[in-house]
Amino acid sequence: MLIDGINYRTLWFSDDGKSVEIIDQTRLPHAFEVVVLQSLPQMVHAIKEMQVRGAPLIGAAAACGMVLAMQASASDANLEAAAQQLCASRPTAVNLRWAVERMLERLRPLSPGDRLAAARHLAEEICDEDVQLNKRIGQHGLGLLRQMHADKQRPLNILTHCNAGWLATVDWGTALAPIYTAFDAGVPLHVWVDETRPRNQGASLTAWELGRHGVPHTVIADNAGGHLMQHGQVDMVIVGADRVTSRGDLCNKIGTYLKALAADDNRIPFYAAVPSPTIDWAITDGLRDIPIEARSADEVAWIQGREANGAIVSVRVLPEGSPAANPAFDVTPARLVTGIITERGVSRPDQLRSLFS
Amino acid sequence: MLIDGINYRTLWFSDDGKSVEIIDQTRLPHAFEVVVLQSLPQMVHAIKEMQVRGAPLIGAAAACGMVLAMQASASDANLEAAAQQLCASRPTAVNLRWAVERMLERLRPLSPGDRLAAARHLAEEICDEDVQLNKRIGQHGLGLLRQMHADKQRPLNILTHCNAGWLATVDWGTALAPIYTAFDAGVPLHVWVDETRPRNQGASLTAWELGRHGVPHTVIADNAGGHLMQHGQVDMVIVGADRVTSRGDLCNKIGTYLKALAADDNRIPFYAAVPSPTIDWAITDGLRDIPIEARSADEVAWIQGREANGAIVSVRVLPEGSPAANPAFDVTPARLVTGIITERGVSRPDQLRSLFS
Repeated sequence: MLIDGINYRTLWFSDDGKSVEIIDQTRLPHAFEVVVLQSLPQMVHAIKEMQVRGAPLIGAAAACGMVLAMQASASDANLEAAAQQLCASRPTAVNLRWAVERMLERLRPLSPGDRLAAARHLAEEICDEDVQLNKRIGQHGLGLLRQMHADKQRPLNILTHCNAGWLATVDWGTALAPIYTAFDAGVPLHVWVDETRPRNQGASLTAWELGRHGVPHTVIADNAGGHLMQHGQVDMVIVGADRVTSRGDLCNKIGTYLKALAADDNRIPFYAAVPSPTIDWAITDGLRDIPIEARSADEVAWIQGREANGAIVSVRVLPEGSPAANPAFDVTPARLVTGIITERGVSRPDQLRSLFS
Repeated sequence: MLIDGINYRTLWFSDDGKSVEIIDQTRLPHAFEVVVLQSLPQMVHAIKEMQVRGAPLIGAAAACGMVLAMQASASDANLEAAAQQLCASRPTAVNLRWAVERMLERLRPLSPGDRLAAARHLAEEICDEDVQLNKRIGQHGLGLLRQMHADKQRPLNILTHCNAGWLATVDWGTALAPIYTAFDAGVPLHVWVDETRPRNQGASLTAWELGRHGVPHTVIADNAGGHLMQHGQVDMVIVGADRVTSRGDLCNKIGTYLKALAADDNRIPFYAAVPSPTIDWAITDGLRDIPIEARSADEVAWIQGREANGAIVSVRVLPEGSPAANPAFDVTPARLVTGIITERGVSRPDQLRSLFS
């Protein structure tokens, strides 16, 4: 996507071929900074600290992390150790494990001397594929939005939670791909952006990237969506996902379930935009079987922002002595999901398997 | 309630009898500051800027504001003008209008020379009554919590949204009155505190007052409650209200509706604790007839907290150029409310009228 006239992806190999560059998402929207990662530990740190985040992007980042690991040593032992470290870096999104396993399958049979080049080749393939999958999601979503606009004959109001935009992927985004595609095609629309506490990915990332692209949007507290739906101000909800089960249970950023309940209560269509690497065909019951990451209480207690004088600082919002809890994801049961937008088309949750069979 | 061993209400008349003192709630939890208000404009400012907030407390504050107005001039014209200014200061809570009308009824028939003393007398009566109503709510709520503890035979987990504690009233609180009463009576319990964006009344006020009283609690992002309910970690929800209609529709802080939906989806009892001045018998349909205050977008864009060095500062969390919207309340339909805890007992929403007839 374009930033100040320059075309960016969220991560790319440096010109020297020895490092990976990423946009540091912990500094947005206040500062745009590119960080150079030269080793596996640096990539693991970037994933854990969410300098890169979003299920598709951490899959791509893990693939690139394997390249950095092979650069240091392409031994069998290092191959397995790197895979383990990457898989342990964050537990919920299935894309990470999917990318690492794909790398392992390709690299294990090779002699160490052939592994670095093959790793680089496959990592670039995974990145390029992600862009293509998301473009196709955008096309299928465009069909939905065009139809809805034809029905309503007025600008569409779409609510999204967290960031499933191009910053959550290598490019284009998942939930925002239909929005960018429709906006570029002239479908009039406006996006309600949930700020998405505690890390504010909506306020700091989604609002920023929509603003750069010129898409009309308004940031709201996560609490506000139900009220807007009750008053006819939301036509559709589109979110991304960190993992979807074979029956269509949807694991996504904490709070997604609450918006799905409100959409259901107000008969508003609720869609998830999901590339196939996010689908975990091995499990059905998302509430029982998807591990939910518990992140640091400090993410609730402290908030980063910019002072009026321009300084980027963190401030504590909790009283001293008050503990906090921070589950990072929740599971929306398939019964609350109207449809899943994939690279193969739009499916009811219970027909996901037949779409990919 | 006790703060560092000293018994406080949230507002009181000064010893000199000429001013009203309040705890400045915009400075909590980082600083405990008492502000002296000497005129009606100062009281209107304190209500608008939420130095005092919470439906019962702004009712009491409005009554005290009428006293300050009578002090300046007890003419008929000033009586009516003061009432108008106070009623216009915040639109949603019905307690404010209720208190002002009660003052008007008492003061209008009197000669100007008698008004100041009568105003002071009635304002003190309204404050004392509030304390008594909330104590009775605490007693009725205690019965519910005792019964639930007898059923579960383990510490109770109660979720609350916003601040309906003693800081929202003259003393004791509404939603927190049953919690304080049960805690003092030895019922083991733990409170999940919704941080309550955008103004963080949960994180900054509820957590603070629970902490001062020694009640076990954990602050969570507003997004987390549904997930906790799905996993059996919430036994009951208790919230306050800014207005309840005659059929039991519940207007409360934005986001309450989402928690009511999640409680309903997980068969968790959802209670509102409401003194009778919060009930608006004149309306039935809350979604249609309760005016919802739209507050400044800056409350979403900027967050106040304390830096590690101790300074209290505001930081911007939104990108420049991204607009925000800030509806302050939502309406939970009576069908999602298990019961309403009042000073007269606990009632199903559809039986509220018979409880007070």
